[in-house]
Amino acid sequence: MKNFMDKDFLLSSETAKKLFHEYAETMPIIDYHCHLSPAEILGDKKYRNITELWLGGDHYKWRAMRSNGVDEYYITGEASDYEKFEKWAEVMPKLIGNPLYHWTHLELQRYFDVYEPLSPATCADIWERCNKRLETLSARKCIELMDVKYIYTTDDPCDTLEHHAALAKEDTSFKMLPAWRPDKAVNIDKAGFTEYIGQLSKVCGFEINDFDALKKALAGRLEHFHALGCRNSDHGLDYVVSEDTAYAEVAFTKVLNGGKISKQEADSYKTALLLWLSAEYTRLGWVMQLHYGAVRNVNPVMYAKLGPDTGYDAIWGGAESGLLLGGLLGRMEAEGHLPKTIIYSLNPIDNAQIGTIIGCFQNSEAQGKIQQGCAWWFNDSLKGMREQLTSLASLSVLGNFVGMVTDSRSFLSYTRHEYFRRIICELLGAWVENGEYPDDFEALGEMVRGICYNNAVNFFSLEK
Amino acid sequence: MKNFMDKDFLLSSETAKKLFHEYAETMPIIDYHCHLSPAEILGDKKYRNITELWLGGDHYKWRAMRSNGVDEYYITGEASDYEKFEKWAEVMPKLIGNPLYHWTHLELQRYFDVYEPLSPATCADIWERCNKRLETLSARKCIELMDVKYIYTTDDPCDTLEHHAALAKEDTSFKMLPAWRPDKAVNIDKAGFTEYIGQLSKVCGFEINDFDALKKALAGRLEHFHALGCRNSDHGLDYVVSEDTAYAEVAFTKVLNGGKISKQEADSYKTALLLWLSAEYTRLGWVMQLHYGAVRNVNPVMYAKLGPDTGYDAIWGGAESGLLLGGLLGRMEAEGHLPKTIIYSLNPIDNAQIGTIIGCFQNSEAQGKIQQGCAWWFNDSLKGMREQLTSLASLSVLGNFVGMVTDSRSFLSYTRHEYFRRIICELLGAWVENGEYPDDFEALGEMVRGICYNNAVNFFSLEK
Amino acid sequence: MKNFMDKDFLLSSETAKKLFHEYAETMPIIDYHCHLSPAEILGDKKYRNITELWLGGDHYKWRAMRSNGVDEYYITGEASDYEKFEKWAEVMPKLIGNPLYHWTHLELQRYFDVYEPLSPATCADIWERCNKRLETLSARKCIELMDVKYIYTTDDPCDTLEHHAALAKEDTSFKMLPAWRPDKAVNIDKAGFTEYIGQLSKVCGFEINDFDALKKALAGRLEHFHALGCRNSDHGLDYVVSEDTAYAEVAFTKVLNGGKISKQEADSYKTALLLWLSAEYTRLGWVMQLHYGAVRNVNPVMYAKLGPDTGYDAIWGGAESGLLLGGLLGRMEAEGHLPKTIIYSLNPIDNAQIGTIIGCFQNSEAQGKIQQGCAWWFNDSLKGMREQLTSLASLSVLGNFVGMVTDSRSFLSYTRHEYFRRIICELLGAWVENGEYPDDFEALGEMVRGICYNNAVNFFSLEK
Repeated sequence: MKNFMDKDFLLSSETAKKLFHEYAETMPIIDYHCHLSPAEILGDKKYRNITELWLGGDHYKWRAMRSNGVDEYYITGEASDYEKFEKWAEVMPKLIGNPLYHWTHLELQRYFDVYEPLSPATCADIWERCNKRLETLSARKCIELMDVKYIYTTDDPCDTLEHHAALAKEDTSFKMLPAWRPDKAVNIDKAGFTEYIGQLSKVCGFEINDFDALKKALAGRLEHFHALGCRNSDHGLDYVVSEDTAYAEVAFTKVLNGGKISKQEADSYKTALLLWLSAEYTRLGWVMQLHYGAVRNVNPVMYAKLGPDTGYDAIWGGAESGLLLGGLLGRMEAEGHLPKTIIYSLNPIDNAQIGTIIGCFQNSEAQGKIQQGCAWWFNDSLKGMREQLTSLASLSVLGNFVGMVTDSRSFLSYTRHEYFRRIICELLGAWVENGEYPDDFEALGEMVRGICYNNAVNFFSLEK
Repeated sequence: MKNFMDKDFLLSSETAKKLFHEYAETMPIIDYHCHLSPAEILGDKKYRNITELWLGGDHYKWRAMRSNGVDEYYITGEASDYEKFEKWAEVMPKLIGNPLYHWTHLELQRYFDVYEPLSPATCADIWERCNKRLETLSARKCIELMDVKYIYTTDDPCDTLEHHAALAKEDTSFKMLPAWRPDKAVNIDKAGFTEYIGQLSKVCGFEINDFDALKKALAGRLEHFHALGCRNSDHGLDYVVSEDTAYAEVAFTKVLNGGKISKQEADSYKTALLLWLSAEYTRLGWVMQLHYGAVRNVNPVMYAKLGPDTGYDAIWGGAESGLLLGGLLGRMEAEGHLPKTIIYSLNPIDNAQIGTIIGCFQNSEAQGKIQQGCAWWFNDSLKGMREQLTSLASLSVLGNFVGMVTDSRSFLSYTRHEYFRRIICELLGAWVENGEYPDDFEALGEMVRGICYNNAVNFFSLEK
Repeated sequence: MKNFMDKDFLLSSETAKKLFHEYAETMPIIDYHCHLSPAEILGDKKYRNITELWLGGDHYKWRAMRSNGVDEYYITGEASDYEKFEKWAEVMPKLIGNPLYHWTHLELQRYFDVYEPLSPATCADIWERCNKRLETLSARKCIELMDVKYIYTTDDPCDTLEHHAALAKEDTSFKMLPAWRPDKAVNIDKAGFTEYIGQLSKVCGFEINDFDALKKALAGRLEHFHALGCRNSDHGLDYVVSEDTAYAEVAFTKVLNGGKISKQEADSYKTALLLWLSAEYTRLGWVMQLHYGAVRNVNPVMYAKLGPDTGYDAIWGGAESGLLLGGLLGRMEAEGHLPKTIIYSLNPIDNAQIGTIIGCFQNSEAQGKIQQGCAWWFNDSLKGMREQLTSLASLSVLGNFVGMVTDSRSFLSYTRHEYFRRIICELLGAWVENGEYPDDFEALGEMVRGICYNNAVNFFSLEK
């Protein structure tokens, strides 16, 4: 029996161990998709205790607690920080096979030097030791401890990016760069859209009363983002659209004037805006990320109480989305402005479909110009990562994969990169030991280092 | 090489063996979803030979025989019992990798003390030995032999439940409880609906001529079921509905008067009835089971000859169903009457989606209030169970899982619980031995006992 | 650690090795679905170098090269043959986990006695040795070397089949038989349809001006194919249709007269033609193959440049297709003319659905009358084949499986049969060694030989 989560955690063969310890482990981190707060990084935020850090906003943990019958009082309610921590410790032993079990212990080990399993028996002691250690930890300390070199935060076109600008003037061991997330400008059918356009008008200093004005406004914001180092955009699509763009301008004007539009008109607008943005990304040399397959706020009662991003989302996706995705990328390609792209679906059944769609748009503009993104959100697990990696390897060129993202709001989540690296080294090691690939450590090492860090750095046109 | 299906069948690690033999093996059985006949249990049915017991109504075996080119004469036709058994023995050696291969031998071992593989070579001898043993076996003997404590049969609202009432007066080692399956009242678009409503009228003693009368009738039957210990309902949905309920009452009256209704009207009625029933279940503290993803009677020729449940169903399901499911549960939640629920899709590609939907409705009313049901029907295999368990563990709290059901018409199927227990112990054992979870047998043992029996007993508000 | 791709490649247990080396390895090959050129087989085509043979038309390799950022100049462009080979060698080391990595080395080993991994370091030497060997290789030599007994080419109804007729007069170690692929006659909604009907008119010697004339024309061509040994048809369906056939004749006449038709009319025509053809196949004792789940020519720019079958296709499929498939087969069954059928979907998520649909139409006309085809195209990988085999075994009778096809345009692809045989022997061996099936080598050996060769030979009514 192997020891519980020791230095060879998830590594069963000699080749896997060698690949991890000699090649993967020491690589820096680039996190090109996360939801960390630029203000907290700039201000080097500190935490009063482990509950604030762990349970203050992590809806993954909230879901697990609810699934164990924990009352909302101990989750998002008024219970004391220690009571909340106790409830989390109670859930832990039942979470066998869940990534939260491993994330929690990787975080305890790497940031807090705690190697015991968290459970009701160890809860009080671990609480003390974590809080003690937190006296010397902070947002930036976490980043430095994990050797993070690049962080792309997720930012709205209206954002001033003042924190990014301020931090850029400091001498830091890492770079914090903005990533462009224009969902609010795309989702013409969501509540708050006209208010958002009003806000964008204000930021840009002119009235946005038609589609041309909108494009002009966004073009200005794109320049602002680009000037601060942004080379990275991100779209969360409720569903993939590839509609006739003929109704886009009319739809936009209608909505601005308080009118109602049909689904076709909304999709027409969204398609037109995505096509225009993809042309801009291509012109600027940016990467376009597309996320789909999520259905949000499934529980209306809790949505009314807690709002979005509180643990009430689920998987949608399916074959039809992929068909539309092929159509959308085909139009960008036909119009000559398909940028470097990363595609993520939240539904793991879409893996094979995406693996084949990306193969339809590869060319000599980059090694792996069109990527399948890493196993994301609900799939960010042993099972999900293995499936994504095996599917991608079977259908594409694994050696060019741009690797892992945290998609996290927590400064402790960087250990998920370690988790990912252990999984890929185990997978590659098994293939080599099974005679499926030669034990050529030069090729293997370069591949591992590429997938851990180098490929993404090249993909986003950064310096190593 | 391991011995063929010996005491450590499917158990490869020491931890797996310990978990199975010290914790799982000795737990009683609760079968909260089966199709056993209450009359046969009450009458303690005996069997003239192994063919009657095995091949009399088991459409799983019929499918396998047809797939091997066996003529219907030897399946549902006039061949002698021994000829039928011979044909089954001929198929056996080709069934490598099929759960029928393991079910058959588990049943031979546990009920008949036969440890040789069934094949044409052993057919005559095994026929003799099984039939000899059947002289002392019976429906209740099978139940007692397997230490079954609770059986929920599947019953129509019109059923008198007389067998349940009669058996309740006897001193038995197990309890037979009714489960409420109102599909005939829901499926307004199926042949025989008005006749069914007429039958329900007769049972209730008043005319059902509008939706209110229907609810009154069903409310009376719910009370009757509740009085006999029912805490369990079950819906087989052709597809998930979540339609506007505005047309429900009109649709019902139309159909009663011999009119035709649109799909939207039918879905409106079904949605309204499901919503009302969910409120009743919540009021009574019952569990609601929802099954979907099956398409029935795919072969029109054989359906005309043999009727339903004869081995001609297939998998449907897919992403759209899950979206509607989220919508339907969301409405029950919004209206304040989402009961404890178990969700099953027949399509294994729905695993991840269901694993995330249940997470959207968990709260402190129960540990694991909303469950993904065990791998069901076509997925009740090594592959299917491993996938369901791994998916559930990744996305939810495995420790709260209510575990296995047989969904069977045979008194020999209880060995499927053993099959399931071996699979989950092997899975947990592998995780522990791989350092993914501590070798804490107190936590592991409690979890195993919970998943085998205790969780379900709590979930259905029964005594341990 | 195992040696790189040695004689026990992919075989980890003694049982797996025994099954492969003593039973599978020596079986002949039947390739009942490929795209080899009858003219090249008749003419015993030779190759000027390995690039012509490997990279002349293999869009699998082209995709991988594009995914590595190789310019089209080195793929389908004007670069020299050696430059193209060099680019392929550069991609190789990154293809870990991809079937191309194994296919390439199996081909190097079996046809060229080259056992080193192909990489930039070995590129020049391997180029020399392969080209040297090619001096003595040819299309027929490849076929003989691999002990191929039957090849079904893919032929249009208009084909004269003159090469088949000519080769049949020669004394060869193998038989080349035609397979009937009438997609151009089915796809009424595709460009070139009326031209195709004109061509068919010319071949048949009478004008085709209505649906009856079309059936008469096709009936004549079916006889011609049958006379030359065809027992095999194949349909590539963009999507599965099961529409009302009432509009078929009108739709056909409309299109012939230059009119436009709706999707419903097109589907009506397609359904009617498929139903009629299935009756003909049944009458003639042919096998019907149905392929679906592919979306073609996803990249409009490259389609305009390179045309179809150049590496720009992707996966579609999904639950709805399976539902229609069940409907279509049900109609053939109801009308009394469902032939022996093999079903393939390009989407691996359809595995379970297909595994259950085939079970709905099995009967005593054959052992395994309705088959799920082997893992096809994008799924022709370790992962894809394991998943298809495990799913098929769980849901059907694996022992009756008709086994592997190459679906290839290359005479070197026969090693994919070896790849498949290793995978299935490894799978069966693991089950036996794990005590899941007895170590009965008589039964196992017969099963392996059946799946490798004998089952398909029986299925297509050929001589062993």
